[in-house]
Amino acid sequence: MQPRYLKQAEAIKLDEELFHYFGVEQLMELAGLSCASAIAEQFPESKNVLVVVGPGNNGGDGLVCARHLKLFGFSPEIFYPKRPAKTLYQNLMKQCELFEIPVLSSFPVVEQLNSQYALMVDALFGFSFKAPVRQEFSEILNTMTQTSTPCCSIDIPSGWDVETGPLDPVTHLKPAMLISLSAPKLCAKFFHGIHYLGGRFIAPTLARKYELNLPNYPLTHNCVRL
Amino acid sequence: MQPRYLKQAEAIKLDEELFHYFGVEQLMELAGLSCASAIAEQFPESKNVLVVVGPGNNGGDGLVCARHLKLFGFSPEIFYPKRPAKTLYQNLMKQCELFEIPVLSSFPVVEQLNSQYALMVDALFGFSFKAPVRQEFSEILNTMTQTSTPCCSIDIPSGWDVETGPLDPVTHLKPAMLISLSAPKLCAKFFHGIHYLGGRFIAPTLARKYELNLPNYPLTHNCVRL
Repeated sequence: MQPRYLKQAEAIKLDEELFHYFGVEQLMELAGLSCASAIAEQFPESKNVLVVVGPGNNGGDGLVCARHLKLFGFSPEIFYPKRPAKTLYQNLMKQCELFEIPVLSSFPVVEQLNSQYALMVDALFGFSFKAPVRQEFSEILNTMTQTSTPCCSIDIPSGWDVETGPLDPVTHLKPAMLISLSAPKLCAKFFHGIHYLGGRFIAPTLARKYELNLPNYPLTHNCVRL
Repeated sequence: MQPRYLKQAEAIKLDEELFHYFGVEQLMELAGLSCASAIAEQFPESKNVLVVVGPGNNGGDGLVCARHLKLFGFSPEIFYPKRPAKTLYQNLMKQCELFEIPVLSSFPVVEQLNSQYALMVDALFGFSFKAPVRQEFSEILNTMTQTSTPCCSIDIPSGWDVETGPLDPVTHLKPAMLISLSAPKLCAKFFHGIHYLGGRFIAPTLARKYELNLPNYPLTHNCVRL
């Protein structure tokens, strides 16, 4: 059974419904944890990880992911250029500081990425992304597309349209791995790398209501390869 | 390397320090998840689980545990006699309702416990417990000590002194399994059953400061057998 791939409006509606029941901190914790688990499972030797953090909840998932990667014995670093003045994100950063996760003040150039990092985590944009990418982020994405360091995208590959996929046929981000959260979004149809599902917190009632056709996760695992 | 067993005052201090950095919802989610994982690992066939929920944060861990057990394919039920009017607990209950977890209106008698449940989860009291047990809970504990259904206690066996262990040499609760959270408390020295550690969220800096000597968790596991 294949899971259903959601349109952007469906993903937003499911998200809104989840927040009738859950706090954002709860779901973000489980989402970020599942990303760290999938990465550790797939790239156990890639200890030097650069987590590229965007301004919204996708970035929050990235911050949680970085913290759990540290607990799993990885050496994550963070680049977080645009930080909204929200308690949620400030607390997540305070936690990263407690875990002594280095924060970069500028984005590495291509050669530095190639030589210093075994993996990049793309936590820039999530399922609510609307084109175009703003200047400051398009420069980062441009560098990310040029490096030989593999990239793992959280929920959607950043810069891709949530439904129609790559916006630029040539220069778009080509992640080696994608971790869809809750359910894949339509753009994942255009992705042909290592595809995981994480964010194991959907009640059976909601899975039925949204016809998600979720796969069976292994007993206690919080992520599953699709 | 054995983990250090904490005095009550140390456990309270560590907890207070954690809440400088984390929201209670975050840590409770990870704690309850690790309990569900340990139970699923140890009792994979014990699908009918009764989660006995106390009025404080230990009860909150139990509610989270019940929800994740449901996701893991178990059939948890809840008994939650005393519910404080706090948003935290109300939300956790709302989530259990969303997951269609039955809530008992009265505590089963011994024969019902024996015949209908493969496992009890004791989420009554945690590391802040001070004797004596109030009447309403001592009746429940009394029933729990008489059943043949095995019991898994979260953080401390309820009714035990956090440091000196069983209060009554004869009638105390004798859980088959104990899941210590963050670090074992002193009373765990008097426990000789299946002992797990869960609550994998302690920063290395805090582990050093409190000299916790935490064991190595398997790569991405959120619990480890001691």
